[in-house]
Amino acid sequence: MVAVHPDVAVLCTLLGTWLGEGRGEYPTIASFGYREEISFGHVGKPFLAYHQRTTATDDGRPLHAETGYLRVPQPGRIELVLAHPTGVTEIAEGSFTGDDADLAIEVAASAIGRTASAKVVTAVARSIRVTGDELSYTVRMAAVGQPLQHHLAATLRRAAGER
Amino acid sequence: MVAVHPDVAVLCTLLGTWLGEGRGEYPTIASFGYREEISFGHVGKPFLAYHQRTTATDDGRPLHAETGYLRVPQPGRIELVLAHPTGVTEIAEGSFTGDDADLAIEVAASAIGRTASAKVVTAVARSIRVTGDELSYTVRMAAVGQPLQHHLAATLRRAAGER
Repeated sequence: MVAVHPDVAVLCTLLGTWLGEGRGEYPTIASFGYREEISFGHVGKPFLAYHQRTTATDDGRPLHAETGYLRVPQPGRIELVLAHPTGVTEIAEGSFTGDDADLAIEVAASAIGRTASAKVVTAVARSIRVTGDELSYTVRMAAVGQPLQHHLAATLRRAAGER
Repeated sequence: MVAVHPDVAVLCTLLGTWLGEGRGEYPTIASFGYREEISFGHVGKPFLAYHQRTTATDDGRPLHAETGYLRVPQPGRIELVLAHPTGVTEIAEGSFTGDDADLAIEVAASAIGRTASAKVVTAVARSIRVTGDELSYTVRMAAVGQPLQHHLAATLRRAAGER
């Protein structure tokens, strides 16, 4: 098995699969509960591959998904390069602190792309925390004319057999 | 197994895994051969999930990867929503013609995002053709100060056991 590239080795606590639940809210929609699976992988190059999927807590229907890559351009700095099936791309940049035992990531979107048919998203801010076998995150978002505000919060556990 | 969403059912010939080889060239780099695996999936929602990976023909080292989603906002129109591990996001929009037996897609990037550490890509144009069990594509690109020009061409076959 190939070693994690030294540039992203500081993020290696993320590697593997995470399972958990979250809750979403926004002024323009009904609040909702969701189950989530997140996966981080690598191929020995200076990035981690990321994807996630959520399903509704009530009936299991698929909700959101995201996919993309994480990069560490310099020590303590992190870049997320994301595609959303809603027709939105997201470049989010920021910083991280901590290590394998306790990692904290804070990023904000620096570039948001959208297809002609996508809803307008104007700002995204993400906080991600990994403490041991627990990963939690919050997402704040400005979209469809609403100011930046809380949108998502979830807590996941490292899947059995990982690490 | 959930049915393909009617909006993207016209693209269902893409679904599954494709294996093949390609060749890349650009004025700023040495030409290179690559092996490629492309996968399209769906969850019953109005998009297809896409990812691909390439490895070098000469020594098998991982080269590029891409991941994202395909949408059909209206009949004959297609949107690609992509993330690249090079720190680039790509919204590509265009049209498609044909059907399950012979599908031709033509898109050009309408929005390109980049992280602070990414190389500058200013234009991308993609042609994708599926005829029976063969998928071929070309990518033209303007990057690092070079004008839009041929960059990649590959031909893949539907993996055994698919469809």
